[in-house]
Amino acid sequence: MTEQTTTARTPLAERSAPELEAFAAEQERAYAALKGRGLALDLTRGKPAAAQLDLAAGLLELPHGVKDASGVDTRNYGGLEGIKELREMFAELLWVEPEQVVAGGSSSLTMMRDVLVDLWLHGAVDSERPWSQEEKVTFICPVPGYDRHFTLLEWFGIEMVTVPMNDDGPDVEAVAELAGRDASVKGMWLVPTYANPTGSVVTQEIAARLAAMETAAPDFKILWDNAYAFHHLTEDEAKSADILSLAAAAGHPHRPIMFASTSKITFAGAGVGFLAASVENVRWYTGHLGKGSIGPDKVNQLRHAQFFGSPQGVRDHMAKHRLVIAPKFAEVERILTERLSGLGVATWTRPRGGYFVSLDVLDGTAARVVQLAKEAGIALTPAGASFPHGDDPRDRNIRLAPTFPPLEQVSEAMEAVATCVLLATSEKLLATT
Amino acid sequence: MTEQTTTARTPLAERSAPELEAFAAEQERAYAALKGRGLALDLTRGKPAAAQLDLAAGLLELPHGVKDASGVDTRNYGGLEGIKELREMFAELLWVEPEQVVAGGSSSLTMMRDVLVDLWLHGAVDSERPWSQEEKVTFICPVPGYDRHFTLLEWFGIEMVTVPMNDDGPDVEAVAELAGRDASVKGMWLVPTYANPTGSVVTQEIAARLAAMETAAPDFKILWDNAYAFHHLTEDEAKSADILSLAAAAGHPHRPIMFASTSKITFAGAGVGFLAASVENVRWYTGHLGKGSIGPDKVNQLRHAQFFGSPQGVRDHMAKHRLVIAPKFAEVERILTERLSGLGVATWTRPRGGYFVSLDVLDGTAARVVQLAKEAGIALTPAGASFPHGDDPRDRNIRLAPTFPPLEQVSEAMEAVATCVLLATSEKLLATT
Repeated sequence: MTEQTTTARTPLAERSAPELEAFAAEQERAYAALKGRGLALDLTRGKPAAAQLDLAAGLLELPHGVKDASGVDTRNYGGLEGIKELREMFAELLWVEPEQVVAGGSSSLTMMRDVLVDLWLHGAVDSERPWSQEEKVTFICPVPGYDRHFTLLEWFGIEMVTVPMNDDGPDVEAVAELAGRDASVKGMWLVPTYANPTGSVVTQEIAARLAAMETAAPDFKILWDNAYAFHHLTEDEAKSADILSLAAAAGHPHRPIMFASTSKITFAGAGVGFLAASVENVRWYTGHLGKGSIGPDKVNQLRHAQFFGSPQGVRDHMAKHRLVIAPKFAEVERILTERLSGLGVATWTRPRGGYFVSLDVLDGTAARVVQLAKEAGIALTPAGASFPHGDDPRDRNIRLAPTFPPLEQVSEAMEAVATCVLLATSEKLLATT
Repeated sequence: MTEQTTTARTPLAERSAPELEAFAAEQERAYAALKGRGLALDLTRGKPAAAQLDLAAGLLELPHGVKDASGVDTRNYGGLEGIKELREMFAELLWVEPEQVVAGGSSSLTMMRDVLVDLWLHGAVDSERPWSQEEKVTFICPVPGYDRHFTLLEWFGIEMVTVPMNDDGPDVEAVAELAGRDASVKGMWLVPTYANPTGSVVTQEIAARLAAMETAAPDFKILWDNAYAFHHLTEDEAKSADILSLAAAAGHPHRPIMFASTSKITFAGAGVGFLAASVENVRWYTGHLGKGSIGPDKVNQLRHAQFFGSPQGVRDHMAKHRLVIAPKFAEVERILTERLSGLGVATWTRPRGGYFVSLDVLDGTAARVVQLAKEAGIALTPAGASFPHGDDPRDRNIRLAPTFPPLEQVSEAMEAVATCVLLATSEKLLATT
């Protein structure tokens, strides 16, 4: 979180009661006007805009030919690990060896689910028993985080314990303490680059600590969801920490399992998901995968390999995305700054990449802001969604997802959000004075 | 199994020892000549031939446009149940309502796996508890059957009990007896139309018995893998039993879960899988699916919907497949008849559809036949593969898969198989006389 201090204003909390009442009345008028406009806007999910999807229109003309670089007919069964040229391409992008990469189906989330199913039913390469046979399994969840990660764990009945997500990654002291003392703590989620929703980037130092720390469980896993590895919003491009090498060097080669995806590179629903891990982990994964699959959609993989052409082709393509979405993030920043800075009512992130802005409002007002927005026709991600079980203990975090709507709708929606924040804050302050 | 009696010959078992020795010597010479040819042929798996995949070449030019019939952008996230027009198309083909159908990813086997995971972790809509919390879970497996079905059950530690697969479907008396007396018996596999490997077609009467029978488990499931519903080899087209209606009429609407796929209609690795079941089952399935997926590859679904155009388009397309593969099945039949009939050494199926011929040789010789074939360069599915744990108690069943090789290779391979059968049989008979 960056402190916002660009404008000289009197923070609301320092104002007298009459001043606050006048301010509140002003916000109520603004909110009434807002409702009168009958808006229908949506900032809920991290979906690419149609203009981003259009960048990959060339995919629809591909593939040319049906054989991959190894001469395999991509239309037929087989090849659980994915086609060679796409594994090689993403191995280079993710700084791993091709044999450490599996190119899968259209969803990396499904690959995460499958890994958890495998761990649950059979245990990891370094497990003493299937996780389902443990008395309790606990995961460390940096918060705010990705709601679908938490929902998946809930589905298995896995307990969740939270640690703060800082600008440089998770609070590594807290993580090491939890993992070190409790053998039921079997793993952690992490979105290492431009995290959902904070935009945090895990530094090489934090990653090294996570890779090297002693864990009570011998089979501790870092589920390293590098969904936004190449999704830069500025020229100051973050470099993902090299977790597989760090873990191998620290003597814990099987600890991290990395995921990546082209969902937000080509088509959100029709991309290619990737898993990267130690060769033993890859063998473990494909061994289980083969029980319920005769291979991924290799035609779509060939389509992607031809579309990108090279690892640089992926990077070049992401630069085009940046041109589409960076202005939307700039607009969020402009409006939040203009409307909220200096008032002591909110802090927010200025992400250098990824898909989200994380907005922290006054404690106890996030749910009210989301409700006010909803009543005015602006759909926001439910308050608390970035926390396990949807429970934000301070009720302050709101995830903003500005990529999907056109720019002018982002502006409208953010003006509305600002009004809702100011109204909710003044309500709260008046109620407590 | 059809008795093969077209040629007047003396069955081997009725021949004198000298006659048998002369016959064996002849087979040994033939086998030595066979080995000398250095063949490399493969009849192992039910894979479509390149000529079949070419029939769907038009798919590679599609889709035109990116929106489905509901105006949804297929490129983006969402739509767990699949696109409307493809669900409608396959609902008609499978005789169910569109809301009973889910169009999924490229593998119906994965959908089967997911259903088992859901049953295991959470139980069915009519379960008292998750299946993982039962002391024991048992499945009824008609044999010979599909090896991957058995492997999946093994993966969960589900026990398997076999019943014979007859021409008209599973031995329904045996099924009803097992399901009626033992509450650990939670379900059964069934390939109802042109079964793998027997080609059996479950009659409406047998299906009605399965739908109506009393089961000790309240949540008994029929996993109805209709992989070959439209895969006719003759004009005498089998009509799949209408299991969902039968089960609903019998008061067990949630008992069957049907699977289908375009893997052997369009591209084996890049088709669309389907699940069909009661509306409650569909809700149950998509509810769990949504924990690990934000929707299937809808672009590929749109591609398929446009390629077929209509349910009749699917049927018309299958007629083209028949022209490619029916001659291969005719060749298998011709060679087996010419070489083996009247000798009392084997029986085999004459399937009216599907992908396999099931060959039963003399008890105790199947593994030897497969070994002999392997040493002569002909890969056959391992003996026993059509039985749980790969264990054919009579060691007599061999699955032949003639679709993938070109016709001339099918001929060569089948001549070789016949030689191996004759050699293995004469070895066996000589050893026991």
